[in-house]
Amino acid sequence: MSHPTNGIDDLVHQRVRLGILAVLAEADRADFTHLRETLALTDGNLSRHLQALEQAGLVSISKGFRDRKPRTWVSATRLGRRAFAVEIDTLKALVDRYQTEQQRG
Amino acid sequence: MSHPTNGIDDLVHQRVRLGILAVLAEADRADFTHLRETLALTDGNLSRHLQALEQAGLVSISKGFRDRKPRTWVSATRLGRRAFAVEIDTLKALVDRYQTEQQRG
Repeated sequence: MSHPTNGIDDLVHQRVRLGILAVLAEADRADFTHLRETLALTDGNLSRHLQALEQAGLVSISKGFRDRKPRTWVSATRLGRRAFAVEIDTLKALVDRYQTEQQRG
Repeated sequence: MSHPTNGIDDLVHQRVRLGILAVLAEADRADFTHLRETLALTDGNLSRHLQALEQAGLVSISKGFRDRKPRTWVSATRLGRRAFAVEIDTLKALVDRYQTEQQRG
């Protein structure tokens, strides 16, 4: 039987990208500054990981204005929401297995 | 409030290293071949990640023989077991939060 971690997709599992998709799972869209502050990242680090997610089709990025200030908006695509849901299912299988093991041990 | 992913330690979170520590959480020790097959890895990939975990003090590696064949045995150290337990707690918080969000949504 395959180990639960074997099915993990590195693209979604990586800490920063997992955080981005988690925040976007809770909102229709989030702006760059909100993501940066919530996830305690630098501009460069957030930009790099957003680019990876956008290239894979998991987020979409758009520019706009609010209160006359320029904003960069980020949304999860349908594919991105699905990939996050799959990752959460995989993590749940791992957590469940390990907690069962602890109870036996 | 800090996001659940902010506390993730990349050393333990990375897919292959998480898999190694998960297998070792279920056994006193595992041999190299067992880890490689269970986690569907190449020799080189497993070696590289074992080295990272050993350097951080999370696993210990010893050479021995069984049935006259040389074996490389790997065990999680106390620190390694603790780091894995912390990771599982963090993942559980993330899974719980997202599942709650799905139910609200």
